[in-house]
Amino acid sequence: MTLPDPHINTTDVRMKGFASRTTVETAIAWIDSVLPPLTNLQTEAVTLFEAAGRILAEEVISRANVPGFNRAMMDGFALRAEETYGATSYNTLPFQIVGTCLPGSPFPETVLPGQAIRIMTGAPMPAGADAVLPVELTEAQGQTLLAMGEVSAGKHVGIIGEDIRTGAVVLSPGRILRPQDVGVLSSIGCSSVKAVRQPRVRILITGNELLPAGTLPDGCRIADANGPMLSALVNRDGGLPEMPGIIADDRESLLAAMLEPADIVLISGGSSVGQEDHAPRLLAEHGELAIHGIAMRPSSPAGMGRLNGKLVFLLPGNPVSCLCAYDFFAGRAVRSMAGRSRDWPYRRTPVRLSRKLVSTVGRIDYARVRIHDDQAEPLAIGGASVLSSTTRADGFVIIPADSEGYAPGTEVEVFLY
Amino acid sequence: MTLPDPHINTTDVRMKGFASRTTVETAIAWIDSVLPPLTNLQTEAVTLFEAAGRILAEEVISRANVPGFNRAMMDGFALRAEETYGATSYNTLPFQIVGTCLPGSPFPETVLPGQAIRIMTGAPMPAGADAVLPVELTEAQGQTLLAMGEVSAGKHVGIIGEDIRTGAVVLSPGRILRPQDVGVLSSIGCSSVKAVRQPRVRILITGNELLPAGTLPDGCRIADANGPMLSALVNRDGGLPEMPGIIADDRESLLAAMLEPADIVLISGGSSVGQEDHAPRLLAEHGELAIHGIAMRPSSPAGMGRLNGKLVFLLPGNPVSCLCAYDFFAGRAVRSMAGRSRDWPYRRTPVRLSRKLVSTVGRIDYARVRIHDDQAEPLAIGGASVLSSTTRADGFVIIPADSEGYAPGTEVEVFLY
Repeated sequence: MTLPDPHINTTDVRMKGFASRTTVETAIAWIDSVLPPLTNLQTEAVTLFEAAGRILAEEVISRANVPGFNRAMMDGFALRAEETYGATSYNTLPFQIVGTCLPGSPFPETVLPGQAIRIMTGAPMPAGADAVLPVELTEAQGQTLLAMGEVSAGKHVGIIGEDIRTGAVVLSPGRILRPQDVGVLSSIGCSSVKAVRQPRVRILITGNELLPAGTLPDGCRIADANGPMLSALVNRDGGLPEMPGIIADDRESLLAAMLEPADIVLISGGSSVGQEDHAPRLLAEHGELAIHGIAMRPSSPAGMGRLNGKLVFLLPGNPVSCLCAYDFFAGRAVRSMAGRSRDWPYRRTPVRLSRKLVSTVGRIDYARVRIHDDQAEPLAIGGASVLSSTTRADGFVIIPADSEGYAPGTEVEVFLY
Repeated sequence: MTLPDPHINTTDVRMKGFASRTTVETAIAWIDSVLPPLTNLQTEAVTLFEAAGRILAEEVISRANVPGFNRAMMDGFALRAEETYGATSYNTLPFQIVGTCLPGSPFPETVLPGQAIRIMTGAPMPAGADAVLPVELTEAQGQTLLAMGEVSAGKHVGIIGEDIRTGAVVLSPGRILRPQDVGVLSSIGCSSVKAVRQPRVRILITGNELLPAGTLPDGCRIADANGPMLSALVNRDGGLPEMPGIIADDRESLLAAMLEPADIVLISGGSSVGQEDHAPRLLAEHGELAIHGIAMRPSSPAGMGRLNGKLVFLLPGNPVSCLCAYDFFAGRAVRSMAGRSRDWPYRRTPVRLSRKLVSTVGRIDYARVRIHDDQAEPLAIGGASVLSSTTRADGFVIIPADSEGYAPGTEVEVFLY
């Protein structure tokens, strides 16, 4: 989606519904305007065994040649290449085997004309020898080697610095470290590297009706579904989730929790404009409530702002709204502060609709679909509280604000969960 | 690639190169023939907060209705819908506000005709009321509510079991648990679930020339690159890597390490047919060396077999060969035993070659490529020891055994690292 210039909408908190709603584009532009650039992110040292998947925060320059010596690339015999010229299986040429060269243990003497050294892959080339005759082209009879083929100078020899030269830039900042990158770091003597520090994301769950996650529903009380879901989403996006438990639904408890140290605060529940919706008011009073009320469905009561240098996201308590608001807004901030791409973390695929998908002009819709026989079937769902719809769905379609929806057969872009 | 019937090739260990090489297809078919099916994998209980990304090993059936009560889906007033008929902003209808209903706290009395209860989203519907009139369609004057619009029965009310019904199958075994699945599990009272146990993968690094990972190269000794790389690959594929440190290059030490408990053993180095290559001989003597020597480049000295119920993979010591052999063979076993898809974990994309890519008929080639201006450029690389080629590359192309390679401009499938 194309983004207009950031337009900071400091909507007042109203008690009778939202007077106006900010567009999704404006909300995303606000987030992008307040996120620090990659170069300003805090860093931390991570060991090699923790480094894969982390975002490199420094330029890595090799302090060593890899390999640091010329080495055999085949099992065979180190010798002087020119002495093998003319050797075939019908016209074998003899050499005297004068020793063995194993990886890690150099041969102490110089190979003289007519001599050969048994050598293994990875072993340092002995002085005097300039090639390896592969074992397949030889026959050994006691201390005599019969060459049955020829090699040219340098053949099957890996030279100093062939893999990496001293002073070479090996990896650049911003890179997601791959398993093989970790191998390369190891080989140049880096036992740890500087990575982008994972943002601390404090997850505040409010709602007097809530029981702890994983509790059987009891009467009119329900288990917290958003806490474990948000924790998993934050982990997925490279953040470190922190869950202090369910926060009592009063101003003092919520404010105290909002003031705890963190990089990002997610507040689930109490984000709307009802009398028990403390979060937007607290944020407006103690920090900045930049955006509140967004032209989208679900998640219209979502909001965002800042408090003491922390980014704060107000997520609706209804689980689908919470997931959707996280993915549109909070996840973008988590990924960015973790040094990752801000973009959606979902694969996208074009699929034709099996049925029509209706939307309302003036708001973005987040419609769950199931993919069946290569067609996307919109799920007929109750509302934002039906979390199981996101479990039955294979992904979702975003219907832009200027669209009334799509006819059956239209090709849409499905974001795959 | 299509796979022939499993053909178990118990190649002898030879001291003079490989007499014959097994095809990649046969090696993969052997792996698939010995891997346990999903239903036979061991399981373990994981808590909700550890569950995302794990593979579910049981069918989850809900023991509860979610929600367990009828609830308001909007902030507004619970009342009898039929009493709102005819209300507009020009013809308001009065109700008496007799209480408030908050989430988690039911209203103790029945709503009588002419009465309304202030209600918040998520609160239980009071007896007698059958709809919620949204706050936007009302005006309150002290204890009097003026309805400015009408609602039909059931409007803005979420009914018992709307999200999940008692007895419903919520999730099926084999599923990779998503963040929202964890939310659903939480809401039905599952504080833990049975997941496929992560396979224990013991990584044995051999080579007397090796220094511990992350050590600066010193003389003819080099740092172990494969240990941290394999550890990261195993983590990526859902296994639990275990690294006992570098194993001394002698039969006794290696055998003792091979006999330690694990599900899968990866042995890096000493996999070929030289005199110091203990691993294949030990495996043949104490277990089963099913395949040794594979028609591919790099990784031709790779092998595999079984020992005391463990799967054992012999990976060449050269880092690119090690990466390639892991990805073709060992990774398949790790992923499968972790309950995941056996398929390559890389995204694939079709790209045209910028230069020709040469291969030898009779073996599979694993060629690293860089993607530049939407073209795949084969990297000119020394050999299997140049690990930095996999860091410079964006991915790789697999050239089938029956191909001599591809002309410039040919569209190839690139596996993206």
